[in-house]
Amino acid sequence: MTGPGKDFPILAKEIYGKRLVYLDNAATSQKPNSVIDTISDFYRSDNSNIHRGVHYLSEVSSERYEEAREKVSSFIGADEPAEVTFTAGTTDSINQVARSLEPVLRGNEVLITGVEHHSDIVPWQLAGARLRAIPMDEGCDLLTDSIEITDRTKLIAVSHASNVLGSVNPVREVTRIAKEHDIPVLVDAAQSIQHIPIDVKDIGCDFLAFSGHKMYAATGIGVLYTSERFSEIMPARGGGGMVDKVTLEGTTYLKPPLRYEAGTPHIAGAISIGAAIDYMQGIGMDKIRRDEHEVYSYARERLLETDGVTVYGNTGQMCGSISFNLENIHHYDTGMILDKMGIAVRTGHHCAQPLMRTLGIEGTVRASFALYNTKDDADALIDGIGKVRMMYS
Amino acid sequence: MTGPGKDFPILAKEIYGKRLVYLDNAATSQKPNSVIDTISDFYRSDNSNIHRGVHYLSEVSSERYEEAREKVSSFIGADEPAEVTFTAGTTDSINQVARSLEPVLRGNEVLITGVEHHSDIVPWQLAGARLRAIPMDEGCDLLTDSIEITDRTKLIAVSHASNVLGSVNPVREVTRIAKEHDIPVLVDAAQSIQHIPIDVKDIGCDFLAFSGHKMYAATGIGVLYTSERFSEIMPARGGGGMVDKVTLEGTTYLKPPLRYEAGTPHIAGAISIGAAIDYMQGIGMDKIRRDEHEVYSYARERLLETDGVTVYGNTGQMCGSISFNLENIHHYDTGMILDKMGIAVRTGHHCAQPLMRTLGIEGTVRASFALYNTKDDADALIDGIGKVRMMYS
Repeated sequence: MTGPGKDFPILAKEIYGKRLVYLDNAATSQKPNSVIDTISDFYRSDNSNIHRGVHYLSEVSSERYEEAREKVSSFIGADEPAEVTFTAGTTDSINQVARSLEPVLRGNEVLITGVEHHSDIVPWQLAGARLRAIPMDEGCDLLTDSIEITDRTKLIAVSHASNVLGSVNPVREVTRIAKEHDIPVLVDAAQSIQHIPIDVKDIGCDFLAFSGHKMYAATGIGVLYTSERFSEIMPARGGGGMVDKVTLEGTTYLKPPLRYEAGTPHIAGAISIGAAIDYMQGIGMDKIRRDEHEVYSYARERLLETDGVTVYGNTGQMCGSISFNLENIHHYDTGMILDKMGIAVRTGHHCAQPLMRTLGIEGTVRASFALYNTKDDADALIDGIGKVRMMYS
Repeated sequence: MTGPGKDFPILAKEIYGKRLVYLDNAATSQKPNSVIDTISDFYRSDNSNIHRGVHYLSEVSSERYEEAREKVSSFIGADEPAEVTFTAGTTDSINQVARSLEPVLRGNEVLITGVEHHSDIVPWQLAGARLRAIPMDEGCDLLTDSIEITDRTKLIAVSHASNVLGSVNPVREVTRIAKEHDIPVLVDAAQSIQHIPIDVKDIGCDFLAFSGHKMYAATGIGVLYTSERFSEIMPARGGGGMVDKVTLEGTTYLKPPLRYEAGTPHIAGAISIGAAIDYMQGIGMDKIRRDEHEVYSYARERLLETDGVTVYGNTGQMCGSISFNLENIHHYDTGMILDKMGIAVRTGHHCAQPLMRTLGIEGTVRASFALYNTKDDADALIDGIGKVRMMYS
């Protein structure tokens, strides 16, 4: 194997005697050796709990953990590391915001889009907010001119890229409009952080959420960026490490980022995000974007050229995922047969039931790309689809 | 190195040219090779997202994840795996319960003990509950006869073992009394799961929380056991994988355990808990308890025999932690000097400020033990303390 793929041990694996063509990256990415080794080396050499220890290992672990925070901070263009909270993942990040803002949100409204993942829907419902979707055109492009903000609108929460369609939402335009009404914006970057260079100051959002496991790092770790003006909101969780003074009668809290990190965090996971950022920056985010875009566009064009294939969504900018269906063949069957050829795709509603309802379908086949995917992978997918269609013809 | 210590690579490390004597296990335990290798092998060979995939790797990952749940279920004597939720850690587990029970707790009362960790205090405060502590005697033994339950008492939340003192609370007696009043009981087992065989049915609790990283597994993973009668409470978090039907108007939820696991879980972490359980069961929990108790009691007795040392807490059953102070020497200084001898202890309030207030002190030195600690470690601690005292004499 040549290219970055050689850094990912799992890609050398054969599935049913076939080369693994891993196109389920929107669900989770594979991990390069450098990330895997960083995790095991940490446990072998440096493992300790952080922040509260006076001993050597505790100091080393704390330093490595805070170094990871600095890497994330610089990777997303935050003003300072204190704006970066480590969470358990994108879903956890969004739930924390929902919980912290609940006093404002309850009985009021959160504006989302019609392509949102359930993780950008259900947390707001649990916080007692009503949801309204910004209108979009037939290609699922947001109609930002139609954004309607009322007195009840307390937050706009939009995905940067759709996990289903790969469509990129115009988040800069959304924040521009939101600022006119002084409404905070949360950006769900779970499907963009690994594909597109991101600068939170450029985007102008107040919250940005993403997961480690989709950007070549460990499972169980995520990030929540919180802009300085929300640095003193109520923490969503309570516990050790985030408090100043605790009595049975009441508690005072530390400043961020500790304020938002109750309990022992996923130390190895945070450090793995640092290693994943090192890996991505070693290639260069611009180069990743360029190379991925070439493979992605190639795959998309080949799919569009294939008879009997419907491809969903079409916006100015795309990345990561392509959703499609084969005429008269259930998405699940398509996925099952592709699997037998070593091609890993995902099928179903992709945790985006409202979008499925809009598209008038139950589910799709989703091929989603990462920096190690090649045109060969795209060709394997197209060949596989050809065989599926033949089986059903 | 002989005994189980040989399985833990970090213990072969030298700190400042001295053998590492790791006595900070109540903060986090070290990891055996089998756990470290399980994590890296997972990422190298099986990594995929779970539950929602049709492809081979997704099936393998899902099976391994659910196998880990079964191991946990059997390890704690649950009726079925569905009673086991994977969380981000003990603190997260307790926060989830607090959030789910908030409608009942708000404005009412949670009964705790005077030795609780902040993670069993602050979540209840964030859920709007008042706290009252069950009285205890001078040795910090709970006076269960003095448990007073009022109409406002909606939950009893007790630690199984104190992270500061090592005192074991009579949780069976607490649940017996609670049952008479039909009050649910949460047991924080963060400091007992690695030391004492635990059976949730025998204890009779409704919730049991613990962390992976303190029981030889990965960071960022924990467990919440929920008894069947609480299987349909509101989930604390919303997102993918835990919902049945989602519309912008409202959402319905799956049954446990999925109901309580929004978003991609810490798959590698859960699997690492399975590996840690395999490791512990390979030795045998009864043998672990016996061997640890011998080392623990030896260390405690030697400390009690040492002039100028105050040891805190004294109850019928003890495990894990020993807290002490040296006369006229600040706990922080003691910890710093011990560190230079390669002895890792923790100093401070150990996230238990109310207990510190009760004891009339600002902090302690805490030595905490795991299955790999030996009488040599205890001797090294006592020798180290002797040297600290000499330096200050």
